[in-house]
Amino acid sequence: MNETPSPEFQLAQEVFAGQPFTALVEAHLLRFETGVAAIEVPHRPQLLQQHGFLHGGVVAYAIDNAITFAAGTVLGTSILTAGISVVYLRPASSGIVATATVIGRTKRQAVVNCEVHCTDAAGTDILVATGQGTATIIER
Amino acid sequence: MNETPSPEFQLAQEVFAGQPFTALVEAHLLRFETGVAAIEVPHRPQLLQQHGFLHGGVVAYAIDNAITFAAGTVLGTSILTAGISVVYLRPASSGIVATATVIGRTKRQAVVNCEVHCTDAAGTDILVATGQGTATIIER
Amino acid sequence: MNETPSPEFQLAQEVFAGQPFTALVEAHLLRFETGVAAIEVPHRPQLLQQHGFLHGGVVAYAIDNAITFAAGTVLGTSILTAGISVVYLRPASSGIVATATVIGRTKRQAVVNCEVHCTDAAGTDILVATGQGTATIIER
Amino acid sequence: MNETPSPEFQLAQEVFAGQPFTALVEAHLLRFETGVAAIEVPHRPQLLQQHGFLHGGVVAYAIDNAITFAAGTVLGTSILTAGISVVYLRPASSGIVATATVIGRTKRQAVVNCEVHCTDAAGTDILVATGQGTATIIER
Repeated sequence: MNETPSPEFQLAQEVFAGQPFTALVEAHLLRFETGVAAIEVPHRPQLLQQHGFLHGGVVAYAIDNAITFAAGTVLGTSILTAGISVVYLRPASSGIVATATVIGRTKRQAVVNCEVHCTDAAGTDILVATGQGTATIIER
Repeated sequence: MNETPSPEFQLAQEVFAGQPFTALVEAHLLRFETGVAAIEVPHRPQLLQQHGFLHGGVVAYAIDNAITFAAGTVLGTSILTAGISVVYLRPASSGIVATATVIGRTKRQAVVNCEVHCTDAAGTDILVATGQGTATIIER
Repeated sequence: MNETPSPEFQLAQEVFAGQPFTALVEAHLLRFETGVAAIEVPHRPQLLQQHGFLHGGVVAYAIDNAITFAAGTVLGTSILTAGISVVYLRPASSGIVATATVIGRTKRQAVVNCEVHCTDAAGTDILVATGQGTATIIER
Repeated sequence: MNETPSPEFQLAQEVFAGQPFTALVEAHLLRFETGVAAIEVPHRPQLLQQHGFLHGGVVAYAIDNAITFAAGTVLGTSILTAGISVVYLRPASSGIVATATVIGRTKRQAVVNCEVHCTDAAGTDILVATGQGTATIIER
């Protein structure tokens, strides 16, 4: 895509990149548009577990963060992630992309689904994990 | 505790420390005994999100890993974590300890609860998050 | 639809209607096709909780059963539901339809998302709850 | 127990028995004390699925309701269950007891664990399923 990112996307990328833990993981915000956010975690040896696959904690990080940013596209920035559930389908041996989609909301809460994909050595797209979570607006 | 760690605990600590992502997070395996595993993630500025609290992804990492190691105390080492659910109760502003306890098992599967605690500035123990998950023996 | 149901759909409807608890709830199997199953629970006073809304347990029943039948469209009939997670968004004051969609599978397991909708007094479609779950093939 | 139930327990039993769906299932409130609630669902042929085991939807109903009542012991009666997760460990071939325990709370929310047990033909206690959920105080 050669399109200029929207101001909202640029701001979200700054917030995302400003998370110290995201800088440690070296993740990128790929998409940020109404109802959708996507996060890429490129392959790095530092992100693996003892069998050479991507650590499940990295997958959970990506799901947590993608769900929070997707919820932010509809609820604004004063939100907290209330909970997530994660199903691990297959170990990932490459970088991943976590794409989160808002499937419903109330005045205070959004519920978000997430899919985590990687690409195997043959170039085939693989579903690594799925998640579901909710974020709520912080009461003042 | 001045007790010498059991050989199983020492081995588990080596496996744990051998996870590259765990080295990046700088977590420690505190406990590893039948049905229980505990992981400490000491406070570090690199583990925060944009508001200065511990990143939810770090909490999810600790729950994922504590559940897997607790399941390993009863199922052995050839296991995969099948899924986790996480409830975030309060943001953490210090290091955390995630303690996972096996509450039941079948021949192939264990179900594990997890609590994540931190200590606030006044020294009070705080429940940060809870988790529940399952791990299954890998089929050969 | 005036189409004749497929033989698979007719068989699934018989299995579904043969569940004694489903007969007690008076639910119907609306859809059963590759990757998708939908269940209708018509409004009945016997299905409510103390505030006059549909009991959360009925919503959970519908999600559990829709996920199991959707998984059955891709894994066959020798399956067990391993787990579900449910997010309740709004109370339902009418009958509901739970639609479950398989979003991925391995050789032994399917992961399934589910949405539960109702129609309010003004005829508007409302998202009541969402779910996610897994089913696995029974080992012999 | 020959003790007279507390007034709170008696009131909770009335609310519980006043749920039309609970009357349809024929469940009983066994315990209701600070931080704990337990629900019994006695064996009945009407509660089974097609293989002769207790329907997973009945297990989910018991977990949902036990979590809600346990949360009510600490949050009061103006609450909604926000979500539950369920892990099914083994099919139940008898009645079940779901015991829910509050493991933490904030001002507005409680997080609750739940275990579902049955007794097999030999009189052995069996863990059928586990759950975790949250309930929140309704905003006025």
